[in-house]
Amino acid sequence: MVITYELQKECPHTGARAGLLHTPHGTFQTPMFMPVGTQATVKTMTPEELKEMGAQLILSNTYHLFLRPGADLIAEAGGLHQFMNWNQAILTDSGGFQVFSLGDMRKITEKGVTFRSHIDGSTQFLSPEVATQVQMKLNSDIAMAFDECIPYPADYDYTKASTERTTRWAERCRKIHDSKIQGMFGIVQGGMYKKLRTQSAKELVDLDFDGYSIGGLSVGEPHDMMNDILEHTTPLLPSHKARYLMGVGTPDCLVEGVARGVDMFDCVYPTRVARNGMAMTWQGRLTLRNATFAHDWNPIEDGCQCYTCKNYSRAYIRHLYKAEEILAFRLVTYHNLYFLLEFMRRMRTAILEDRFPAFREEFWANYHKK
Amino acid sequence: MVITYELQKECPHTGARAGLLHTPHGTFQTPMFMPVGTQATVKTMTPEELKEMGAQLILSNTYHLFLRPGADLIAEAGGLHQFMNWNQAILTDSGGFQVFSLGDMRKITEKGVTFRSHIDGSTQFLSPEVATQVQMKLNSDIAMAFDECIPYPADYDYTKASTERTTRWAERCRKIHDSKIQGMFGIVQGGMYKKLRTQSAKELVDLDFDGYSIGGLSVGEPHDMMNDILEHTTPLLPSHKARYLMGVGTPDCLVEGVARGVDMFDCVYPTRVARNGMAMTWQGRLTLRNATFAHDWNPIEDGCQCYTCKNYSRAYIRHLYKAEEILAFRLVTYHNLYFLLEFMRRMRTAILEDRFPAFREEFWANYHKK
Repeated sequence: MVITYELQKECPHTGARAGLLHTPHGTFQTPMFMPVGTQATVKTMTPEELKEMGAQLILSNTYHLFLRPGADLIAEAGGLHQFMNWNQAILTDSGGFQVFSLGDMRKITEKGVTFRSHIDGSTQFLSPEVATQVQMKLNSDIAMAFDECIPYPADYDYTKASTERTTRWAERCRKIHDSKIQGMFGIVQGGMYKKLRTQSAKELVDLDFDGYSIGGLSVGEPHDMMNDILEHTTPLLPSHKARYLMGVGTPDCLVEGVARGVDMFDCVYPTRVARNGMAMTWQGRLTLRNATFAHDWNPIEDGCQCYTCKNYSRAYIRHLYKAEEILAFRLVTYHNLYFLLEFMRRMRTAILEDRFPAFREEFWANYHKK
Repeated sequence: MVITYELQKECPHTGARAGLLHTPHGTFQTPMFMPVGTQATVKTMTPEELKEMGAQLILSNTYHLFLRPGADLIAEAGGLHQFMNWNQAILTDSGGFQVFSLGDMRKITEKGVTFRSHIDGSTQFLSPEVATQVQMKLNSDIAMAFDECIPYPADYDYTKASTERTTRWAERCRKIHDSKIQGMFGIVQGGMYKKLRTQSAKELVDLDFDGYSIGGLSVGEPHDMMNDILEHTTPLLPSHKARYLMGVGTPDCLVEGVARGVDMFDCVYPTRVARNGMAMTWQGRLTLRNATFAHDWNPIEDGCQCYTCKNYSRAYIRHLYKAEEILAFRLVTYHNLYFLLEFMRRMRTAILEDRFPAFREEFWANYHKK
C-alpha cells in the first residue's frame, strides 16, 4: 500500500481528528485542503508559490486531462508530476463528477458513460476501466474510483440503483488498478438517504480501498442536510484510513466537515472567486472591486502573513481588478489559498492541543457568511 | 541633478557604449532594456520576479495612470513605487505618444491636447504643465517632457511645425519641473528629416535636460531609415548624458540601436507577444501554440537560465496555451523579459571587453527575423 493514514489525535468532544497522510511524494498533515489544478496547473500559480504557502497535495481533474492534452502525452512526459513540475503529492479525481455534470451531453449505461467533449463536441467514453487506466498513466499518488455523483434532489429508487452501480463500478476499478504503485480511494454515494449511505459505505469498505471519499454532497442540498449525512457517514468508515469530502472549500463547511471527522477537502472556490475579485478572510468575503476600497491602504486582512498581504494594499489590488490586470488574479488567488491552508493548519493545531471546540466556537463568532 | 550618466567604455569601431545610470533608487547598468508596466504592473509579473531576472528600471505610462486610478490616488499611496511595491527606479513617459495614437479622438492646440478617454469616453486634457505635474505626483525617478510623436509618413512642413512646438512644450515642462527631486529627459523629434532632427536636438540640448530620448522612430518607417536617423541623431547629444530610444524592443533593433550609441530602450513587445504565444530566442521567435511543439520536451531555449527554461517543456507550455491558462502568459513573459535583459547584459559585456562588433556579427549570423 503506497498510501497510508496515521491517526495522531482525536478530539474528545467532536469527530475531529489530526493525522498524517503518507504518500510516494512525502508525508502530509491532516486535516488538509487541496488546491485544485484542473488542467495540470493551479490557476495563476507556480508550484513554488504553492509550496511557499504550505500546499501539500494538489488535485487534478482526470476528465480535463483525458480530453486535453490526453493521458498518453502526460505519460510520455513521465507522468503528471514531471509534466507540470510538481514534486509533492497529487490526487486525481475519476472524471465522474464532470461527465455527470454534462447533463444532456452524456448517456449512462452499466458499461460506462458516453459523452460529448466540452472542447470540440467529439464523442468520448469513460468507464471504470478507462478512468482507472487514465489515472495510472497520469501516475498520480491517489486515484479515485469511477462513480456517479447523484444530483440533488433525487428519488430513493434512482439513488439506490445509482449507488449500487457505483459499487459495481468500484469493484471493476479495484480489479484492474495496481495498488502497488498508486493509492485508490472509493467514493461513498447514497444521496441524502442514510440507509443508502450505510449500504454504500459497507460495500466499499469491503473492497478495502486505501481511503474513502464522501461524494454527492455540496450539490445543492441545505447545509444542515449535508452535515447530517456527513455525521452519519464518517463513523461508517475505518478510522485507520483517510476520509475525503469532495468539492467543499468554504471555511464554514470546512470547520463543520472537520468536526465530523473529515481529513481532506478540495474545491475550486478559493481560486475561482479570486478571479472574480473576492478575497476570503476570517470575517467573511470582501468584494475588492467595490468603490469602498479605492483609498483603502490596508492589506486584504490585517495580520495575514501571506505574500499579498505583506506587500500590497486593497487600493492597489482594486486598481488591478479595474484595469483587468492578471496580477490581481495572482495576488488574490495567493491570498485565498494561503488563507484556507492557514485555516486548516490552525484547525489541526487546535485538535492537537485539545481545543478544537473553542476554535469552532470562535470561528462562528467572527465569521459572517455572505 | 538626481539622474546622472557615467560613461564607462566606448566601442572604438561603432557608437556602442557602456555606462552607469545613477538614480534615486540605485545605480543601473547600460545599455539597458526597461520592461513596461503600463498600468502600474508589468503584465503578469511580480516585482520580485522582475528583480530575479535582472530588471533595473521599469517604465510606466502617464496616460494610463492619469486616467486610472489617477495621479492623486497614487500620490496618496506615497508615489508609484509604494503603490506598486517596486523599490528600484521608474521612468514615466509623458502621455504624448498615447494621446497622439488616439487619432480622431484628440485635438492638438498650442496649449495642449484635448482627448477622449479610451476607458469611459470622458473629455480629458493633457499639456506640458499637466503631464509634468502628473509625473511629479507619480514621483517617478525619470519624467519625460511632453512631446508630439509625429506619425510616419509626414510632410516636411507638418514635421517642422510639430517639432518646433515640441521644443516650446519642452521649455514649458522644464519651467515647472522640479529637477531636484526627479530627473527629466527631453524628447528629440524631427520625423525622418535629418535637418529637423538636428534642429530639435540642438534646441533641447540648450534646455539642459538630464538625458535625451529619441522619439518618433519605430512608427512604421523602414528599419534602414530608422537606423539612418538614429545614426544622425545620437552624435548630436551630449556624451555625458543618457540616450533613450523609445518604443523599441526586438533584438535586431536593440543591437543596431546600441551600435549607434543608445543606452536605454523600452517596448511592450516581449510582454505582449508572450500573451499571444510567442517566445523570443537567439534564433528568432517560436509560436508555441503550433502542433510541432506538442511532444517537444525541450525548454523554450536550450541553455537559457531563466525560471521557465529550467523547469518547463515546450509541450507543457503549449498545453497551457491551448487550455488558456494564465500560467502560460506568466512563464513566457518571464522568459521573454529574461531573454531581452540577458541580451542587453551580453551586449554590455561585449562592449566592456572590446568585442562588440564580433557580438553584432554573431548575432546576425544566428538570428532569423520573422
